[in-house]
Amino acid sequence: MSERFDLIVLGAGSGGLSAAQRAARLGARVALFDPDALGGTCVNRGCVPKKAMWFAAQIADMHRLGAEIGFESSPLRLDWARFRTLRDQYIAGIRHRYATRLDTAGIRVITQAARLVASDTVLTAQGIEASAPHIVIATGASPRRLDMPGFQLGMLSDQIFMLDAPPQHIAIVGGGYVAVEFACLMRGLGCRVDLLVREHLLTGFDRELVEALAMQMQAHGIRIVRNTRLKRARGEPGKITLEANDGVEHGVYDAVLWAIGRVPNSHDLGLEALGVERDEAGHILVDASQVTSVPGIYAVGDVTDRRALTPVAVAAGRALAERLFAGHGEEPFEDQDIPSVVFSEPPLGAIGLTEQQAHARYGDAVNVHTGRYTPLLWMVAGRSEQSMVKLLSVGEERKVVGIHVLGPGSDELLQGFAVAMRKGLYWRDLKSTIAIHPTAAEELLLLH
Amino acid sequence: MSERFDLIVLGAGSGGLSAAQRAARLGARVALFDPDALGGTCVNRGCVPKKAMWFAAQIADMHRLGAEIGFESSPLRLDWARFRTLRDQYIAGIRHRYATRLDTAGIRVITQAARLVASDTVLTAQGIEASAPHIVIATGASPRRLDMPGFQLGMLSDQIFMLDAPPQHIAIVGGGYVAVEFACLMRGLGCRVDLLVREHLLTGFDRELVEALAMQMQAHGIRIVRNTRLKRARGEPGKITLEANDGVEHGVYDAVLWAIGRVPNSHDLGLEALGVERDEAGHILVDASQVTSVPGIYAVGDVTDRRALTPVAVAAGRALAERLFAGHGEEPFEDQDIPSVVFSEPPLGAIGLTEQQAHARYGDAVNVHTGRYTPLLWMVAGRSEQSMVKLLSVGEERKVVGIHVLGPGSDELLQGFAVAMRKGLYWRDLKSTIAIHPTAAEELLLLH
Repeated sequence: MSERFDLIVLGAGSGGLSAAQRAARLGARVALFDPDALGGTCVNRGCVPKKAMWFAAQIADMHRLGAEIGFESSPLRLDWARFRTLRDQYIAGIRHRYATRLDTAGIRVITQAARLVASDTVLTAQGIEASAPHIVIATGASPRRLDMPGFQLGMLSDQIFMLDAPPQHIAIVGGGYVAVEFACLMRGLGCRVDLLVREHLLTGFDRELVEALAMQMQAHGIRIVRNTRLKRARGEPGKITLEANDGVEHGVYDAVLWAIGRVPNSHDLGLEALGVERDEAGHILVDASQVTSVPGIYAVGDVTDRRALTPVAVAAGRALAERLFAGHGEEPFEDQDIPSVVFSEPPLGAIGLTEQQAHARYGDAVNVHTGRYTPLLWMVAGRSEQSMVKLLSVGEERKVVGIHVLGPGSDELLQGFAVAMRKGLYWRDLKSTIAIHPTAAEELLLLH
Repeated sequence: MSERFDLIVLGAGSGGLSAAQRAARLGARVALFDPDALGGTCVNRGCVPKKAMWFAAQIADMHRLGAEIGFESSPLRLDWARFRTLRDQYIAGIRHRYATRLDTAGIRVITQAARLVASDTVLTAQGIEASAPHIVIATGASPRRLDMPGFQLGMLSDQIFMLDAPPQHIAIVGGGYVAVEFACLMRGLGCRVDLLVREHLLTGFDRELVEALAMQMQAHGIRIVRNTRLKRARGEPGKITLEANDGVEHGVYDAVLWAIGRVPNSHDLGLEALGVERDEAGHILVDASQVTSVPGIYAVGDVTDRRALTPVAVAAGRALAERLFAGHGEEPFEDQDIPSVVFSEPPLGAIGLTEQQAHARYGDAVNVHTGRYTPLLWMVAGRSEQSMVKLLSVGEERKVVGIHVLGPGSDELLQGFAVAMRKGLYWRDLKSTIAIHPTAAEELLLLH
């Protein structure tokens, strides 16, 4: 006999936690199913451990820069095992706080996988059954695997966080942000890195800034190989060769990271039987209110076809709970309003349309404002690499439709501009704001 | 016989250069007088060399943080002479670019001090005379000196940049942003630092954040002594003792930095004879259009009573030139719209009203939203110091009237929010913007 709830959530990642907690705060009885660790991808295998490693790479990069401006010291060496222990302790602390918060909120947490057996009922393999008028699927996504000989010789991004020692020479296969971020941070931490890209680097970002980033990555010693389709990995663990379709062999590597995209965790949930529609890649199709093709079943986060970003999942989960249990939703957001940052070295940030997209949409009405500058400390060090900012505006009144930034500080400077764009941002607004000097952020105000 | 120009500018710092260049671009014949280096305080003795040293201190701080998260390395030691050479080369490069730009613009640069002999005429000691219907005074400010026994044993901020070796134990006297910045960066570079404050620390900034910063400075080993009025310095260069009015002695120090404010360079300009009004401190009084009490004479930058910040001087100079030579001005800005950052460790940023100011102006209508969090990397390192964000809003609609941030990233994250505030920022705007995770900047969106 199934226990009744007001809301059932499958998946305790960013989106599921957000929906469950907001619903509970609004008085709903909530059951939350997840066989794995609280926090999902972001906390355990994504943003958080990645950002910790990015910071570690930044420390190493700063150390090298320090040597160029007069600091004397021996080379840095990271004790990976020690760093991993500290990072894992930090992440365990986050999970602990989540557990406490869920407990305080009275949310029933069941650490089992559940599948839907009716549009209002879920069942776990261990026989726990629960029902509710609203079920939210927030099961996330997993790294894509390939059906390729030797694939198992490489790692997935989940596994790279478990390394206790650095690879000497790693191949990173992929061209998305995960591939680029790992390429930069492994390079920062002293590994030899080959980045093997099937076709384009960072599709969806402004081409000119992506190329500027690629040049800096290469200047830092990353070997970028494009238009490479692999057919086979061979060798043994620690001695891996990658064979491309064109006959070229890459390696020998002591590690390979497959960062070739992610697949939604929409299988084994009983969705087919209920008629919950998915796209070809398996993403659950939802409307702007996160409703699937079956009434009472919703989906948020990476399992859907919306942008796979933690804050997007969090906003969707929160808005859904508000609609279901407070009777009002938040203002919906368009995908183009979503700011995002690639934690590369240097970081790359974007809001709104790329130059290509702006031209496609607005044609000749687009004004392109581009600025290049060498950051102060790089100048002192005698480096000549340039940071870049690009702003796209439309028409006489120069309404801003895209902001793109590459360089140190891009990770932190973008958020406020995203708020400003949300309000409708015009060239005159930038020109009438007083700059903060000397910063990277002010460069967006100093454009011509 | 005096040569005629359309505009005469006294002072080739940020404000003067801005006015001169914009006027020249609008077709004006411009003469620019300055006996000292192009770029004024900001480039030669202020923001730029200070920021370079701040970055160096950041590298040292990051190195210490690295040791806490598993990096193995010997301690860093900065070769001050080498760093100074590189930094000075960089600054010489800026001056060179300015010179080229002025030359290209056809601006007559006279490296002599000039004073006004009539409301439209200036004269140098070497006998060069020039006249113009418009004269802009942009002579800046200088560090304040005290008529105190032994004052000459200490340095002014101008001189600290010339050190070729670090002091072992420095006393920094003052409580303003210059004192705080130097205290943090000298500490970051390994010096023992006593900060001797007459009364308050960072007057004009939100009290709560200032106290949070003071605690972190103390945690980093800076000794802050408040309510200390000094009456005498004694000893010899390299062995200096400071005597306070209350009989307490501080030291012995091998260096003392006087950072006790700045005085406008408004003397020896012939202003008295022409009746150009100044306040008690010597600041030239100007209206919102930078006009002094004498028609045809204007003033911009630190010599005036407006906020002494480079971007304020730049904006004022540009707006003035636009009004004089293009017949239209830019929208004026209020002092409360001015964002500013103290490059302390960690940095402190502010836009708009402090909590104290907001309460004074809006009383009970003020909502105070405060967030505290420990930055990700500090958590990994096991540090417990907290970053802090504070947002002040007014009334039911929660219009944002103040934003205050303390913590890593505060230097870069603030600018975009300043743009948003310029447009009229409301709580709902922050809540409807998608966050960038994980960043410091997103904390302003996550406030309750």
